Amino acid sequence: MYLGKVIGSVVSTKKDESMRGRKLLMVRPMLVDPEDPSKFKPGSNTIIAIDTLGAGEGELVMLAQGSSARQAEGLKQLPVDAAIVGLIDTVSIGGKKTYEAKNS
Amino acid sequence: MYLGKVIGSVVSTKKDESMRGRKLLMVRPMLVDPEDPSKFKPGSNTIIAIDTLGAGEGELVMLAQGSSARQAEGLKQLPVDAAIVGLIDTVSIGGKKTYEAKNS
Amino acid sequence: MYLGKVIGSVVSTKKDESMRGRKLLMVRPMLVDPEDPSKFKPGSNTIIAIDTLGAGEGELVMLAQGSSARQAEGLKQLPVDAAIVGLIDTVSIGGKKTYEAKNS
Amino acid sequence: MYLGKVIGSVVSTKKDESMRGRKLLMVRPMLVDPEDPSKFKPGSNTIIAIDTLGAGEGELVMLAQGSSARQAEGLKQLPVDAAIVGLIDTVSIGGKKTYEAKNS
Amino acid sequence: MYLGKVIGSVVSTKKDESMRGRKLLMVRPMLVDPEDPSKFKPGSNTIIAIDTLGAGEGELVMLAQGSSARQAEGLKQLPVDAAIVGLIDTVSIGGKKTYEAKNS
Repeated sequence: MYLGKVIGSVVSTKKDESMRGRKLLMVRPMLVDPEDPSKFKPGSNTIIAIDTLGAGEGELVMLAQGSSARQAEGLKQLPVDAAIVGLIDTVSIGGKKTYEAKNS
Repeated sequence: MYLGKVIGSVVSTKKDESMRGRKLLMVRPMLVDPEDPSKFKPGSNTIIAIDTLGAGEGELVMLAQGSSARQAEGLKQLPVDAAIVGLIDTVSIGGKKTYEAKNS
Repeated sequence: MYLGKVIGSVVSTKKDESMRGRKLLMVRPMLVDPEDPSKFKPGSNTIIAIDTLGAGEGELVMLAQGSSARQAEGLKQLPVDAAIVGLIDTVSIGGKKTYEAKNS
Repeated sequence: MYLGKVIGSVVSTKKDESMRGRKLLMVRPMLVDPEDPSKFKPGSNTIIAIDTLGAGEGELVMLAQGSSARQAEGLKQLPVDAAIVGLIDTVSIGGKKTYEAKNS
Repeated sequence: MYLGKVIGSVVSTKKDESMRGRKLLMVRPMLVDPEDPSKFKPGSNTIIAIDTLGAGEGELVMLAQGSSARQAEGLKQLPVDAAIVGLIDTVSIGGKKTYEAKNS
């Protein structure tokens, strides 16, 4: 899995029938910066992920990809290759807390 | 999943028997630009995707990859690793609509 | 899937038993050039793909990867992650034919 | 699989139900340096991996990705695409030991 | 699949139970050089692959990745995402033999 930040959303009316009613969020991967591990470095790509946990814009989430995304609650038969499988409370690197969710 | 723009098509007469009659579209991934999130940045690679939704050239679509592509309607047993699973109506980033389909 | 050009072949006598007698072709991915979409840009990587369609050196082919490659005719139980699933007749980008196979 | 170094951890209270109680470690891939194979070169990305072996911060581990991660002990039905499947004792390159775990 | 060169090995005593007794080799991917296709260009990453064919250090091998690696002889239930599925005898590019194993 990897960290990502919810930066927006996507609306698609005409889509695979099995995805009807699913919330589609735009997520940018966030990596621990090799130069300064107390910070995150945004990835250059963006992912459309299915959300089943009620993630909000700006939140840091955990993403699963590929067939693993389909193991998330209720996604078994869907043509989805990216799902938000966790909302992040804290990230600790080298023994120090480098991220804490505002509402946690 | 990720965003892509349909830029063309491919014809292959001699192909895996199970793919007979399938429409093969050439798609370029489109990423939310890290510099200016109101714009998209074209990816450097191009993908041949199976289309089951009637996507047209120039349209922004949602792609699924790998085994997840085979979960799309009618693709279960096909040797396909990329499928168009949605036509995009709107994309919103940071609360602002950054894309709206012409015919939506 | 993606486009590739057959650039050579590989011989492996000692290989997984299930792959006995299979033709192994060396393929270089070909991408639609973002600068000039009427041309292809060779990828920097090279792939060994199983061929079940009789592709020849120099031919443009369609490749499937990962578990999807195993869905191709006769490859279900093989440890193969890349297969040639189509020979390309034509590629059209932006309404113009940018590739046509010699013998098509 | 590939080598990785445990650099931290992640806490996620609200996550896919099946992942409850699982330890989530932040891991940076470590590659054998092409310039000097006696050293490792940190990857630029970071991965959240499930740990079932009790890996500690700073340890060198072996990671499996994708559906293969779900084959690890007890992870069959989880939406996880990365798992620590081994703790590294030694790495030998070109006949020389280039890494030895402190407690091995 | 892709070409790789065995550059070393890894020892892991504490690992997923199903991997007990398996030989773990460190492999660097080898690509056909786009500049000079008679040569190989080492990849920048390194992979830990399960070996079931008795590959030796310095040998050129064929690797399978992802779920395909688990289709190799005896690896069905293992958490492995990379396996050596062939030892390379010869590679031919553009009609010329560019590699021949010493003992072939």
